[in-house]
Amino acid sequence: MSRIFNFNAGPAALPLEVLQEVQAELLDFAGTGMSILEISHRSPAFEKVLQEAKEDIKDLLDLPDDYGIFFMAGGGSLQFSCVPFNFLTEGKVAAYADTGSFSDKAFQEAEKVGKAVKVFSSKPQGYDRVPRPEEVALPDNCAYLHITGNNTIEGTEYFTYPETGDVPLIADMSSEILSRPFPVEKFSLIYSGAQKNIGPAGTVLVIARKDFVAGRDKNLPVMMNYETMLDKDSLYNTPPVFAIYIVGKVAKWLKKQGGLAAMEAVNRQKAALIYNLLDTYPEFYKGRAAKESRSIMNVTFNLPTKELEAKFVEEGKKRGLGGLKGHRSVGGIRASIYNAMPLEGCEALARFMEDFHQNNK
Amino acid sequence: MSRIFNFNAGPAALPLEVLQEVQAELLDFAGTGMSILEISHRSPAFEKVLQEAKEDIKDLLDLPDDYGIFFMAGGGSLQFSCVPFNFLTEGKVAAYADTGSFSDKAFQEAEKVGKAVKVFSSKPQGYDRVPRPEEVALPDNCAYLHITGNNTIEGTEYFTYPETGDVPLIADMSSEILSRPFPVEKFSLIYSGAQKNIGPAGTVLVIARKDFVAGRDKNLPVMMNYETMLDKDSLYNTPPVFAIYIVGKVAKWLKKQGGLAAMEAVNRQKAALIYNLLDTYPEFYKGRAAKESRSIMNVTFNLPTKELEAKFVEEGKKRGLGGLKGHRSVGGIRASIYNAMPLEGCEALARFMEDFHQNNK
Repeated sequence: MSRIFNFNAGPAALPLEVLQEVQAELLDFAGTGMSILEISHRSPAFEKVLQEAKEDIKDLLDLPDDYGIFFMAGGGSLQFSCVPFNFLTEGKVAAYADTGSFSDKAFQEAEKVGKAVKVFSSKPQGYDRVPRPEEVALPDNCAYLHITGNNTIEGTEYFTYPETGDVPLIADMSSEILSRPFPVEKFSLIYSGAQKNIGPAGTVLVIARKDFVAGRDKNLPVMMNYETMLDKDSLYNTPPVFAIYIVGKVAKWLKKQGGLAAMEAVNRQKAALIYNLLDTYPEFYKGRAAKESRSIMNVTFNLPTKELEAKFVEEGKKRGLGGLKGHRSVGGIRASIYNAMPLEGCEALARFMEDFHQNNK
Repeated sequence: MSRIFNFNAGPAALPLEVLQEVQAELLDFAGTGMSILEISHRSPAFEKVLQEAKEDIKDLLDLPDDYGIFFMAGGGSLQFSCVPFNFLTEGKVAAYADTGSFSDKAFQEAEKVGKAVKVFSSKPQGYDRVPRPEEVALPDNCAYLHITGNNTIEGTEYFTYPETGDVPLIADMSSEILSRPFPVEKFSLIYSGAQKNIGPAGTVLVIARKDFVAGRDKNLPVMMNYETMLDKDSLYNTPPVFAIYIVGKVAKWLKKQGGLAAMEAVNRQKAALIYNLLDTYPEFYKGRAAKESRSIMNVTFNLPTKELEAKFVEEGKKRGLGGLKGHRSVGGIRASIYNAMPLEGCEALARFMEDFHQNNK
């Protein structure tokens, strides 16, 4: 076996320890005589998996009791529709902060449902940053403000969040959830596709104030009704058992690493190693994100030419650094350095960037 | 390792060979240096997985070229909403054949969207059978007829399908797809949650006439729009990579077993072993399904008392026969004997039933 450092943006690296555990118990889970892929979602063995995953995530986030945790399917893209279906009711206006390709997609799904407005957009500047709190002014009758906590494609991230007063704040945190502590009590609902920081593709973690999801319209499609998902404890139908099982293992691994404060320390250290190269050779490694919005999850930059970018990706691969190509919509280079990327991976990337600059400047 | 015979209804048994392959390559998939759980859904390695899965399923079904194959998330329950969202347009009436708990749920989701009628129901007889073709009369302006090909909870299955003429026939085949050949060209759209016959929980296989899904309303939630899912080749967003990968392996395994005709032969042989006991001891093993509708996937029956049923489940477990408890909504006993249940499993169950009758009659 020869494992590489995997800088893919999602699906992304998982902790090797987690993969090894999964491998070891793949034919017989917890003495059931069945694979985790074969057990009933209503069995005691899976019930334990689900409850422990929720408890561990609650611990990690220090989540107040008035929040519920549940798992859904369909990825962030189904959430883009679920949010307005549940909360963009007659006479209300949904507010969106447009900070990247995914926030724009979320906005478009809201427009199909009702009135939605962009209260901020960094699109004209190539999505180089997220708004400062004072830049976000909400409309009257605002149903909610939707933000994208970390912009995976563009490499920008919120470190302070807009003040919304009585207006519910909803966030897509698909690419930064559980990478650092944050003030969860500011949010009414948070959703996160698992395939970046917390698991494989196939499930979405939803964290929501219980009173916010209560009282939903009974005519919503049942699989989009947040109240039903919470009330049925993720078990209205057969949930994505395996993906939830992995999320649970990742949560335990995060606790073992020391929790979110410890993760933030190492994540910042990892990001600093790469951003340091961007700051040292700004004419060669041209960062895409404004400094105050630099994501500690996805570092995005361009090289002087497309040819050099292609060469960078190829030579990186030869040094065991995979997945460095930027998103097809924006090109350039992207290093995704989620929780599961070890410090050694970023050190190896930084050394490579130093050498590559030396040889190609 | 001590594996049992797993009679769970879903998630359900997978072929041991498939599980062993998954286990062997879990840390390094196809020389990528990454787990299948970590690779990009847009990587050449996954592209190959996806295309081969589609090709193998096409081969198995002998599917005409005017049908497309794609994978979605959210289970059968999201499909219950997708079908009316896509096809129950203004002025049309959706027809449902009500043959069990899941067809009733599908009907309820359609009622949220528009006008839906039940054109058949075996509910008053405890869902003991599916309709004969001549029993189904369609309303004027019928958008489609929706049937549930195999009723997992009740243990009934269609072996001849209603004639719908120009009206599109849509089927939920979650629990029997790829268990036997069937006239696929009668159907406009088929959906199948993977977790019974073809994979783990987490993805839905959709097979649809390309011209049927063309021209969908652009205002549908994007993740529910069948046209988008087909046009984007299951890759509009990050699909459930791992579940699709397993479905692909199961399809290859089915080809190795000789394809669907060979599977039907063994599946009928397996079912006959159990139904034979029901016919031999009808006062002790009381079959729930009318003979002409007996499912070859889920055999359901009651024993004279609830106490005997509990004892049956417990003693079965001790003999290495797991998951025999009926669905919580109907009770009794259910043996799910999907593709991955080997003949030996049904032989062991039949021996156990013979002994149990002898000792408890």
